[in-house]
Amino acid sequence: MPVITIDAPKLTKEQKSELVKSFAEKASEVMGLPVEAMVILIREVDAENVGVGNILLCDRQ
Amino acid sequence: MPVITIDAPKLTKEQKSELVKSFAEKASEVMGLPVEAMVILIREVDAENVGVGNILLCDRQ
Amino acid sequence: MPVITIDAPKLTKEQKSELVKSFAEKASEVMGLPVEAMVILIREVDAENVGVGNILLCDRQ
Amino acid sequence: MPVITIDAPKLTKEQKSELVKSFAEKASEVMGLPVEAMVILIREVDAENVGVGNILLCDRQ
Amino acid sequence: MPVITIDAPKLTKEQKSELVKSFAEKASEVMGLPVEAMVILIREVDAENVGVGNILLCDRQ
Amino acid sequence: MPVITIDAPKLTKEQKSELVKSFAEKASEVMGLPVEAMVILIREVDAENVGVGNILLCDRQ
Repeated sequence: MPVITIDAPKLTKEQKSELVKSFAEKASEVMGLPVEAMVILIREVDAENVGVGNILLCDRQ
Repeated sequence: MPVITIDAPKLTKEQKSELVKSFAEKASEVMGLPVEAMVILIREVDAENVGVGNILLCDRQ
Repeated sequence: MPVITIDAPKLTKEQKSELVKSFAEKASEVMGLPVEAMVILIREVDAENVGVGNILLCDRQ
Repeated sequence: MPVITIDAPKLTKEQKSELVKSFAEKASEVMGLPVEAMVILIREVDAENVGVGNILLCDRQ
Repeated sequence: MPVITIDAPKLTKEQKSELVKSFAEKASEVMGLPVEAMVILIREVDAENVGVGNILLCDRQ
Repeated sequence: MPVITIDAPKLTKEQKSELVKSFAEKASEVMGLPVEAMVILIREVDAENVGVGNILLCDRQ
């Protein structure tokens, strides 16, 4: 703990690495906790499985 | 925000559209917030990944 | 299962009842599942604990 | 990781300790992972914030 | 309700059955609730979608 | 969408502002999405409600 969860579109491995590095180090700095304590879960969500307002995201694109 | 998450069995695109439209509009009405503020995430979960009581859902079916 | 989670601002009991009734019945209708199978979790989130864009919601209000 | 989240009614500290100990050790055994890798989050949810079927849990009790 | 969510690596059906049985029965015993009230959701997460500290889990392995 | 959730210890408003600003801007940059699309939910979790390994965090401190 802390646990950070990211629900996002499909990402490349490089994008995931960059997010994990940046989020873990910023959270460690702000919370004064060791970076090793950070757990980050990435959930890639299809546009068909996201609603923004009353419409599916895939139908907005 | 608000964010609504739906963990459900496999759904068709039409079912997802109907749920998103209905949930977003009802939440907007009840909370007095613009429908555009609503974010809805749908997670389709296999019956093998769900426990109901002490048994996997796939073993109940 | 299905499990529906609602992250929303502070709500009255009446608002919660209305959301639960509407969401459970619509999900039951759309998914063809018994309404009794629905589990809904409501998480009331302070505006200080929500970011919209790069600003806390409480600082946008 | 793994991360286990428990949405439950109000619990005593003893109940939380027992759940954490039991879940972490069983998950470690089943997954073949060190028990230290386990992160468990407990969310205590009021009966007014839970819907079972189309009714609030507090109205069922 | 209660709802238990497990974010874990890829698991076999047998491992899932064992976790569901053990968690549901322990939660029922500790909380004094019927085992049938338990809902358990299992999310299998790729090592590329998990950060431990500031590094992806797949890059730690 | 994207939706970022942070389960963390009790934080000050300044810490929350800093996390929201940093996470939203980094996610926007990495994903190539407008910063306004970002929704961040912060859940402050007591040490009594967190298990690290098979022990409550409050009993480790």
